[in-house]
Amino acid sequence: RRGTALRELGIITDGAVLCVGGKIVSVGTTKDALRDPWVKAQRAKKGKGKLTEIDCTGKVVLPGFVDSHTHPAFIQPRLIDFEKRAAGASYEEIATAGGGIRSSVAAVRDAKRSDLTSVIYAAFEQMAAQGTTTIEAKSGYGLSHESEMKSLEAIRDAGKLWPGTVVPTFLGAHVVPREFAEMGKDGSRAYVDIVCNQMLPEVSRRKLAAFVDVFCDRGAFTASETARIFAAAAANRLAVRAHLGQLSETRLAELLKFRPASFDHMDYVNDADLPRLAKSDTVASLVPGANYFLGLDRYPPARKLIEAGVAVALATDYNPGSSPTPSMSFVLSLACTHMKMLPAEAIAAATINGAHALRLADRKGSIEPGKDADLAIFDVKDYREIAYWFGVNLCSETVIGGVESQNQSPTLRH
Amino acid sequence: RRGTALRELGIITDGAVLCVGGKIVSVGTTKDALRDPWVKAQRAKKGKGKLTEIDCTGKVVLPGFVDSHTHPAFIQPRLIDFEKRAAGASYEEIATAGGGIRSSVAAVRDAKRSDLTSVIYAAFEQMAAQGTTTIEAKSGYGLSHESEMKSLEAIRDAGKLWPGTVVPTFLGAHVVPREFAEMGKDGSRAYVDIVCNQMLPEVSRRKLAAFVDVFCDRGAFTASETARIFAAAAANRLAVRAHLGQLSETRLAELLKFRPASFDHMDYVNDADLPRLAKSDTVASLVPGANYFLGLDRYPPARKLIEAGVAVALATDYNPGSSPTPSMSFVLSLACTHMKMLPAEAIAAATINGAHALRLADRKGSIEPGKDADLAIFDVKDYREIAYWFGVNLCSETVIGGVESQNQSPTLRH
Repeated sequence: RRGTALRELGIITDGAVLCVGGKIVSVGTTKDALRDPWVKAQRAKKGKGKLTEIDCTGKVVLPGFVDSHTHPAFIQPRLIDFEKRAAGASYEEIATAGGGIRSSVAAVRDAKRSDLTSVIYAAFEQMAAQGTTTIEAKSGYGLSHESEMKSLEAIRDAGKLWPGTVVPTFLGAHVVPREFAEMGKDGSRAYVDIVCNQMLPEVSRRKLAAFVDVFCDRGAFTASETARIFAAAAANRLAVRAHLGQLSETRLAELLKFRPASFDHMDYVNDADLPRLAKSDTVASLVPGANYFLGLDRYPPARKLIEAGVAVALATDYNPGSSPTPSMSFVLSLACTHMKMLPAEAIAAATINGAHALRLADRKGSIEPGKDADLAIFDVKDYREIAYWFGVNLCSETVIGGVESQNQSPTLRH
Repeated sequence: RRGTALRELGIITDGAVLCVGGKIVSVGTTKDALRDPWVKAQRAKKGKGKLTEIDCTGKVVLPGFVDSHTHPAFIQPRLIDFEKRAAGASYEEIATAGGGIRSSVAAVRDAKRSDLTSVIYAAFEQMAAQGTTTIEAKSGYGLSHESEMKSLEAIRDAGKLWPGTVVPTFLGAHVVPREFAEMGKDGSRAYVDIVCNQMLPEVSRRKLAAFVDVFCDRGAFTASETARIFAAAAANRLAVRAHLGQLSETRLAELLKFRPASFDHMDYVNDADLPRLAKSDTVASLVPGANYFLGLDRYPPARKLIEAGVAVALATDYNPGSSPTPSMSFVLSLACTHMKMLPAEAIAAATINGAHALRLADRKGSIEPGKDADLAIFDVKDYREIAYWFGVNLCSETVIGGVESQNQSPTLRH
């Protein structure tokens, strides 16, 4: 959704959602639902085959969150970087000193695929407990042919265990691995060759990812390297997305022609690019958890983007170096307190626009007949409370494909 | 604890805590605990009287958090203020337009005491679920004799229901209520008269509060009004504390002579006051949740205070207008990401220094023989993870007076 449409949530008071076979069948008031002859017949049944009813009285029901940007394929939290930053070092200083993305690589390379699967699955469960039902999950801490494939296999394995929907993304071009970086410009070119000529074809052939992502920024890959990888992705019939504008500004023209599903971060964006971006199908996925965790004053310019008519999504950027949070509702809090987004806009950005960013808006992101029965139930009276309370999970139940799980969060009873 | 002592957590690897009758009896390694003849005898018993064992293998055990600054005596979240701020209004603009503290007053005045008790109790439970075992709780949304007493009674009632320790604070001087504010300077003086001559004596006589607090700042009470209220508190044998330096700087000399237990907020503090503050028994209680929620760039100057030798505590400031969070671990996250406190310093500030701020350091805030058996158990391998992960509650069990409750938070399994 674009611009002011973001504010239209289409709230139904005393609403009811009827789900059958994992799909939403109808949406309306509870009164109308109870009048429906089929519903009446189902309710009259006893035992097996009876309609399962979830009482949401006094609660708020949202479409399950669509978290369109996560990096769950890592083994360890990055506590040393965290402590160094608390002691005054910057993100880029830490990366230069051997911390950052590269410091997560050794453990992933050493890990058994099943161990990687376990930590990824645990992250999915954490996210689901906070109302997320669809997750984009990137590789990118392997940075070798073998360990990137292992990461994508682990994401696939965890996705099979977890009932929600996982969208795997190949991020071999996260950063140039140390052994290539030490070779300078030639090393960088050699690594991009491997990504394009060895990794991408296998990812495509084995259908290990729905998207190819590139971290296009200072210290990672240039816009022309990104364009090269995008072209190779297209040749391998894979859709693309990119990390862009976290640390520095990139002109979008060269990359927009590849029709990326999303540009993510977008802290730095050139005003001249906005009209073109607004006309495109590319979503701007904002990940303010990273700005928060890195202690930055600056947040993604949501208002500027929204007012230019750009479709804006919100995501956690769950990762060990710059955004260790599984919480979409905390991202809503950040959007409202630090980015001047209204609670309604933030919710639309975290649901339907997240779905657009993953090209799944036909199945995900809103409560409409025909879509998947993925719902998040919050123990609050007013939807604005989901963004208002912070540091606390108020999602009491998550419904995935029509099946409920309880999150046992205590109520605030206001 | 002051200065560098903040960093000394005294970590015991493979530790064990023995508690009897709600008190900590001994602290050491598990090996030593299991060798103790009394422990051996208890473990050999069957059925009733047998030692209860909580397996904390692979987890981190902290002293329960001491949240030394909360305002739980309110009825409703302030969603309109929240949405207005997201649309661009400042905290002070909202207060001037009829929002802010005063907009919480009508509902508290109208509320039955038992309803107020329920919401306060629910807040205590939320805090306990995140590892808090001692809570300072202020009145201050009644702002009339009757409804301030009702608020303190409700805090007392909720404190009786809740197993943790509640320290009630009388905050009749939170802001001048509307009906007095409309009278200008005379109204302000008349309200302070009521606080000093009517409310305070009853609070003291009925032992409804352990502390008297004043919001001393621009738009609330002046330093000389605060001094007047502090003098009246002293005359009524009540200890004092104050909200200070949230919006503007106040010189401390006039107030330090009343030996307040804490000055809270302290965003604005004059360097010339630091040596005097460092020599005093007054703790600086920092509440960065308010800075976060109000979307400010500026955070309390923790490093400056610590380096000057001031004792620094961290608290949630749980309240509906500027810090709706029950989470001490989120406050630790803020301290490490935005205030350059090390994780160890933040933990000391949220435990032993919180206890000092409430003058309860003889009973609370550390795991030492003789202290109350209040513990928070986190499902993490390293204590730094408690501040590192954000927007998620990793406190799996809370122990209050030796009695455990499960918080059912899912594990991250890293």
